[in-house]
Amino acid sequence: MTGTLKVVGLGPGDAALLTPQACEALRQADVIVGYTLYVALVPEELKTGKEIISTGMMGEMARCSGALDCALEGRNTVIVCSGDPGIYAMAGLVFELVEERGEAAAGLDVQIIAGIPALSAAAALLGAPLMHDFASVSLSDLLTPWEVIEKRLACAAEGDFVIVLYNPKSKKRDWQLPRALEIIAAHRDKTTPVGIVRQANRAEQAVITTTLSDFDPAVVDMLSIIIIGNGSTRMIGGRMVTPRGYMDKYRQ
Amino acid sequence: MTGTLKVVGLGPGDAALLTPQACEALRQADVIVGYTLYVALVPEELKTGKEIISTGMMGEMARCSGALDCALEGRNTVIVCSGDPGIYAMAGLVFELVEERGEAAAGLDVQIIAGIPALSAAAALLGAPLMHDFASVSLSDLLTPWEVIEKRLACAAEGDFVIVLYNPKSKKRDWQLPRALEIIAAHRDKTTPVGIVRQANRAEQAVITTTLSDFDPAVVDMLSIIIIGNGSTRMIGGRMVTPRGYMDKYRQ
Repeated sequence: MTGTLKVVGLGPGDAALLTPQACEALRQADVIVGYTLYVALVPEELKTGKEIISTGMMGEMARCSGALDCALEGRNTVIVCSGDPGIYAMAGLVFELVEERGEAAAGLDVQIIAGIPALSAAAALLGAPLMHDFASVSLSDLLTPWEVIEKRLACAAEGDFVIVLYNPKSKKRDWQLPRALEIIAAHRDKTTPVGIVRQANRAEQAVITTTLSDFDPAVVDMLSIIIIGNGSTRMIGGRMVTPRGYMDKYRQ
Repeated sequence: MTGTLKVVGLGPGDAALLTPQACEALRQADVIVGYTLYVALVPEELKTGKEIISTGMMGEMARCSGALDCALEGRNTVIVCSGDPGIYAMAGLVFELVEERGEAAAGLDVQIIAGIPALSAAAALLGAPLMHDFASVSLSDLLTPWEVIEKRLACAAEGDFVIVLYNPKSKKRDWQLPRALEIIAAHRDKTTPVGIVRQANRAEQAVITTTLSDFDPAVVDMLSIIIIGNGSTRMIGGRMVTPRGYMDKYRQ
């Protein structure tokens, strides 16, 4: 008899952005597993009376493996992620670990519960930068060779995609962001609008807009999302907007 | 004295995926404006006693302009979108129309309320296809020249991005999807997993997984989202998973 394993997206962290579906999954859980910072985002009343297993950064393997053990013991287990669990988060690793366990985990019911992704939260605060085709690139080279990241940045810039940068820097990674901006700037005007959102929908939220040439990487921290406009993106009354083409089609 | 204009994301349509923030915006609204199909997704109790302005497809300009008029008359106005209002939806057009009105609309409070995007809902149902860098491309050439779309598809494929296709076809657009698949297939193995999600989280939901060479465009309709794997994406127990690299790093 096995339980269920749900990988649940908390969204940016504000309870006003937590879906009823995610709430219900947390309510039904016997065990809640997650990175300490994310577990802290779960509303208190949903944690009461439950086993909480929180681990520090870089503990992804242990965290997901521990959650799998709990679910296989027959307990309803939730792994919490910030944003959407399906975007640079834990959903994929869970399926890989289930596969590694073979027969022992074959019948396990694994569900992914979507959350508001960081890119949506950041875009909403900036205006409407993602109205047209966009590419999302993580600058973390801990798991991905830097050459692959450079190639993707160049392709995204060449294709005139609006570019979303995840994991732009950390204490140990500081040269990747300036290098990424250099690659993008080779294809894009220096006045291209850039939006930086730190800690969207949390108390420490900061929303900054600048341009590709004025961008100071010092304003960016580990919890920032960066959105770089495409060739049409412009500022309208302080908001960053990528037109989709309605005005061109219907007003000219 | 002007009201507020909120552009609100309903998510895929199931009330379980509507955020409390979006609910609250609908509750406070005097007027709810939207495409007929999307207005139908708003829970009945949130529509009671309110003016509802719903328009057919292609009525985007009239819809947003009408909403702007209501807000400028001092009424709390909500424009509803399915998914996230900031991704191929109405958020951008609203800012452009505010700009067009000049001084008359300069003081208007415009807020974008994020919703669960179609790409997140589709990914959650498929497994974990968006765990690594991805690019989103709309195949609608109503507002975007087809050459631009082709160029973006080629760049996304060359950069080994997981590719999300929005608006893959409509009654009048049927050749774009086969052509897009051809462009992508030039850069990607024919066994690459492809996921198709029709009407995510609605009664008519369908989730299909296939491969690039076996993909039959006939299974796709106007309300489908398509996700095409990158070079590492594989099927695990029926789920589509793009590994991020944890297993390679920690298990070998």
